[in-house]
Amino acid sequence: MRAVPRAVERLIEAFARLPGVGPKTASRLTYYLLRAPKEESLELAEALRALRDETVFCSRCFNITSPGADPCSVCTDEAREGEIVCVVEEPLDVLAFERTGKFRGRYHVLHGALAPVEGIGPEDLRIEELVQRVQSEGIQELILATNPTLEGEATAMFIKRRFEGHSVRLTRLARGLPSGGDVEYADSMTLSQALEGRREV
Amino acid sequence: MRAVPRAVERLIEAFARLPGVGPKTASRLTYYLLRAPKEESLELAEALRALRDETVFCSRCFNITSPGADPCSVCTDEAREGEIVCVVEEPLDVLAFERTGKFRGRYHVLHGALAPVEGIGPEDLRIEELVQRVQSEGIQELILATNPTLEGEATAMFIKRRFEGHSVRLTRLARGLPSGGDVEYADSMTLSQALEGRREV
Repeated sequence: MRAVPRAVERLIEAFARLPGVGPKTASRLTYYLLRAPKEESLELAEALRALRDETVFCSRCFNITSPGADPCSVCTDEAREGEIVCVVEEPLDVLAFERTGKFRGRYHVLHGALAPVEGIGPEDLRIEELVQRVQSEGIQELILATNPTLEGEATAMFIKRRFEGHSVRLTRLARGLPSGGDVEYADSMTLSQALEGRREV
Repeated sequence: MRAVPRAVERLIEAFARLPGVGPKTASRLTYYLLRAPKEESLELAEALRALRDETVFCSRCFNITSPGADPCSVCTDEAREGEIVCVVEEPLDVLAFERTGKFRGRYHVLHGALAPVEGIGPEDLRIEELVQRVQSEGIQELILATNPTLEGEATAMFIKRRFEGHSVRLTRLARGLPSGGDVEYADSMTLSQALEGRREV
């Protein structure tokens, strides 16, 4: 005897496949949708369908864009500085930089970081495309804004070596205490880097 | 200038409407689906569509069931004890009891708890249907298994008053320390109830 109808089980399973969503959260979401207005499930279903049909990767920077806007609006915006390119792992990182409102250059999305254990090598990332862009677009500086993790650092180091002999300037984001952070709770790696990178006031 | 295609924004908004899913989690899920195999988004979309078309509430106990199985499999299972009914707030609670494998009676799902502040009154719950069932099904005991919260307690008290004069036995789940819990970290309400309900060993 089945305690739960198949349709409920199926949605729980589909939710549980999402990263960070365990079986308990998946059940909670499913039972919530059972009681919510039907439109709410249908809007989510429709948005899921549209996601892949109505998005493409920008053929220049590989950020997400609409099929009708390739290259993307950042790549085609003449007001942005084309000489400085921020190299990030994921499209979400672009969003984070755009939210600061402080960056007026362009982007390059690698779509991941080197992770030999998981079988992700340089050929899986958009590194050769970056080399091409540096040559063809007259880029002066690459900000290697990969994550401050083992994989992110390895990726930045790989890109640095890949550009040996090129005149392009390679920079990395500053490391230190996060804003609003607490010295007492900072891990020793962060604190060492904050010490090392200290500045005159 | 829009930094994110409309289809991406739309899915982020749809995810963020789910309970417990904030804008950050919604973005993370959306960007995950952008990179995952397309089938994953489509399966989730299909499961969402099917959810409401392929489920109904059991006309007897108001738990979720398939349109072809009403009354539900628990209500029609002759091997279950019809004299004892466990009254719960949500279909998920039924699942929790079924997982224990210790309960052989039937259920009644109220679909909520009294919450005057949110405008949820007795008429919004399946309380009158419960009264009907007690009269027509010869139920001997109602286990009032609403949550140990203010709303759950108020609902149990309301049902208790509603059955004044009926001969049906009304019980409530035991309160005390959760299994695997820690006396040191128990809140004082739980610890008081554990003391009060202490038993001979």
